[in-house]
Amino acid sequence: MSTKLTHTDEAGRANMVDVGHKEKQIRTATAEGFIKLQQHTVDLIRDNHIKKGDVLTIAEIAGIQAAKRTSELIPLCHQLQLTKVDVSCSIQDNGVLATCTSRCIGQTGVEMEALTGVQIALLTIYDMCKAVDKTMVIEQVKLLEKQKLDL
Amino acid sequence: MSTKLTHTDEAGRANMVDVGHKEKQIRTATAEGFIKLQQHTVDLIRDNHIKKGDVLTIAEIAGIQAAKRTSELIPLCHQLQLTKVDVSCSIQDNGVLATCTSRCIGQTGVEMEALTGVQIALLTIYDMCKAVDKTMVIEQVKLLEKQKLDL
Amino acid sequence: MSTKLTHTDEAGRANMVDVGHKEKQIRTATAEGFIKLQQHTVDLIRDNHIKKGDVLTIAEIAGIQAAKRTSELIPLCHQLQLTKVDVSCSIQDNGVLATCTSRCIGQTGVEMEALTGVQIALLTIYDMCKAVDKTMVIEQVKLLEKQKLDL
Amino acid sequence: MSTKLTHTDEAGRANMVDVGHKEKQIRTATAEGFIKLQQHTVDLIRDNHIKKGDVLTIAEIAGIQAAKRTSELIPLCHQLQLTKVDVSCSIQDNGVLATCTSRCIGQTGVEMEALTGVQIALLTIYDMCKAVDKTMVIEQVKLLEKQKLDL
Amino acid sequence: MSTKLTHTDEAGRANMVDVGHKEKQIRTATAEGFIKLQQHTVDLIRDNHIKKGDVLTIAEIAGIQAAKRTSELIPLCHQLQLTKVDVSCSIQDNGVLATCTSRCIGQTGVEMEALTGVQIALLTIYDMCKAVDKTMVIEQVKLLEKQKLDL
Amino acid sequence: MSTKLTHTDEAGRANMVDVGHKEKQIRTATAEGFIKLQQHTVDLIRDNHIKKGDVLTIAEIAGIQAAKRTSELIPLCHQLQLTKVDVSCSIQDNGVLATCTSRCIGQTGVEMEALTGVQIALLTIYDMCKAVDKTMVIEQVKLLEKQKLDL
Repeated sequence: MSTKLTHTDEAGRANMVDVGHKEKQIRTATAEGFIKLQQHTVDLIRDNHIKKGDVLTIAEIAGIQAAKRTSELIPLCHQLQLTKVDVSCSIQDNGVLATCTSRCIGQTGVEMEALTGVQIALLTIYDMCKAVDKTMVIEQVKLLEKQKLDL
Repeated sequence: MSTKLTHTDEAGRANMVDVGHKEKQIRTATAEGFIKLQQHTVDLIRDNHIKKGDVLTIAEIAGIQAAKRTSELIPLCHQLQLTKVDVSCSIQDNGVLATCTSRCIGQTGVEMEALTGVQIALLTIYDMCKAVDKTMVIEQVKLLEKQKLDL
Repeated sequence: MSTKLTHTDEAGRANMVDVGHKEKQIRTATAEGFIKLQQHTVDLIRDNHIKKGDVLTIAEIAGIQAAKRTSELIPLCHQLQLTKVDVSCSIQDNGVLATCTSRCIGQTGVEMEALTGVQIALLTIYDMCKAVDKTMVIEQVKLLEKQKLDL
Repeated sequence: MSTKLTHTDEAGRANMVDVGHKEKQIRTATAEGFIKLQQHTVDLIRDNHIKKGDVLTIAEIAGIQAAKRTSELIPLCHQLQLTKVDVSCSIQDNGVLATCTSRCIGQTGVEMEALTGVQIALLTIYDMCKAVDKTMVIEQVKLLEKQKLDL
Repeated sequence: MSTKLTHTDEAGRANMVDVGHKEKQIRTATAEGFIKLQQHTVDLIRDNHIKKGDVLTIAEIAGIQAAKRTSELIPLCHQLQLTKVDVSCSIQDNGVLATCTSRCIGQTGVEMEALTGVQIALLTIYDMCKAVDKTMVIEQVKLLEKQKLDL
Repeated sequence: MSTKLTHTDEAGRANMVDVGHKEKQIRTATAEGFIKLQQHTVDLIRDNHIKKGDVLTIAEIAGIQAAKRTSELIPLCHQLQLTKVDVSCSIQDNGVLATCTSRCIGQTGVEMEALTGVQIALLTIYDMCKAVDKTMVIEQVKLLEKQKLDL
């Protein structure tokens, strides 16, 4: 593990570090996060879930789209081509758990993509529930797992 | 307070609700969130903070830019023209606290913009510290305050 | 009705025409389009429609998001702030009909936004069905109605 | 040919399918579409065509740019790097025919990029002619050909 | 004229300044810039100019599109809705002069939009000529005029 | 060196040229440009430079982000994945010099990315100083060096 910040050079100036010398590997990352909701809100989502306008589907789609745009949002992130993104939102007792798995064949890890997918999925749920719930909190957004496999 | 989801119609189908009939008001919102870091990581940021490549400045800039793009990221958010965005990242004992205030003159609230500014600022810190800290968690992202004032 | 192309000046050079002198009005437009599918494909969508991963919901969301980005895609379109976008995809005997209604309070019409919403919704259905149907055709994309009302 | 929708998993939930295991090949696709115009409109475009502000050039450029952004517009499309995009708009008796060829070296086909290039080129023509022609219809947008060649 | 940097607060921290209290006015700005080219390159552009694939038209379109996206590119720029953008590229003896006029009804000036339109138009010419000219320089990019008129 | 414009075909029509047959190489480019400022403005930036809200850091970050989006801004530029971007802004006697180095492993050069990084960094400085300096000029934007190395 590094003991210094990798995005700043010796003079402390920011840059997008060179990953060109790294080997191409299959990179996978999974992140998750939670949005705490009132019981009433959970019930409304569950009810809607079986109708046509699915709150969870919309959040999942928003998360997938955001994961693909991570390098536009996070200034020092490298561009990459995800071979897979999967965002899953599941109703829990007191909120919704969002999980995102991203994968690419590349020279740099994909945890920022997984985390971005989670964050935008949770914000999308926030947006759709904000008229009915004034106490929502997004919590425990973190990386669950990160892998690299040789091709 | 509404008792039903406003982004789905009677049939449960999603849409971007009509805000055209609402009055233009000065809308302000403030949100905050926290990223928990190891002591060592906090020290590295604090150290860098007085050099040229400022981790917190980069996170603040990323948050401001993301707040302006909220309607691209959150599917059912309305486009609006923010008259002000301020993102502030401050070092705490065990992490960094990000706060975002957004303002517009418009027909719909700006809390999603404030929350998006916070989330992307925190993800940017995550990105810049991920080589030195494997235990980061983003926590307690929530709305602090929301106001509307007549013009 | 004009008898010359409004986006080219006297010398035939393209520009984004000045709409600053026009009055702000409530502008609404509705467009529709159709994607012709095989019977088998229609059945698969209908079947999926009652499960969680809803093809039509995803197409509707994609259409809404694209409508908001019309001015990025169509070079001479003005930026505007839609107060409402509604995309509706309905299964027909031999395909899916997409309808989009867009609205804004502004100085220029919103038919391009409605048409863009329809086109991207239809392309999204194409994308999700392309593994099972090699004969899809997008047809009859047109404006249904356009209105302006004084404030 | 698949007999089920590839973008939904066993539970019917949408995701961006993993293409990481597929071989890299040279992928080419060609799509076309037509915009039906009044005779008067065709004459105006033809006349402008030999002046400086070329309606067809602008439509072609808009199509090329949109093809590069396909994965932002179509939620479950993979990001890819097109090695070539060519959009050609040609005047016909009663309208304009747009053709787009896209190519990449990658693990997934490029027909959505070709179709998106066609659609946005046609919408751009629609935009530039909408002041003079109220009867335009976009028709027969479809894939003409799709190829993959081993490297 | 201000004697301090307006985008940094008392503590020197960057933010997007509040323009909400400013009056809406008609804002216009014109900027220009020049790309110095070899004689041979100027001839090639002039020759192409009377054919179908017009280098100058493409540069003008690219400039218009970039002007609309200024607030995405310049971190502390406010979002605004341009009512007009006009980019004009004219061949000179030893290069191409690009001029951009932008206009909006808003609370903040549009000079950054005009300058961005000029810069991207010039870069587009650079891109299209880089295979034939290795000595291009972009020069003298500046604001020509800036106006505000009461509504 | 080519003697004809590579982005237009025999008929003079624009397209994005096919680079698929080219070999993958390590491509590097460095560009620079200058913004001329009044002495007073240089002093203000230098003063701010040692505080928290660093004008030069913000310009560097804006340049890095823009370099990654070059293919969206320049119509006929190919998409690519930069493995490194470094933007450096240094205070000179009468202005600020911006330098950008970009690198990728790919089939086409990265000079447009380096130039775009420079231009947006300079425009960002312009934006942050425009309240205090009415005589700024962007000058001498050019390519310094371009390399390709076999893998």
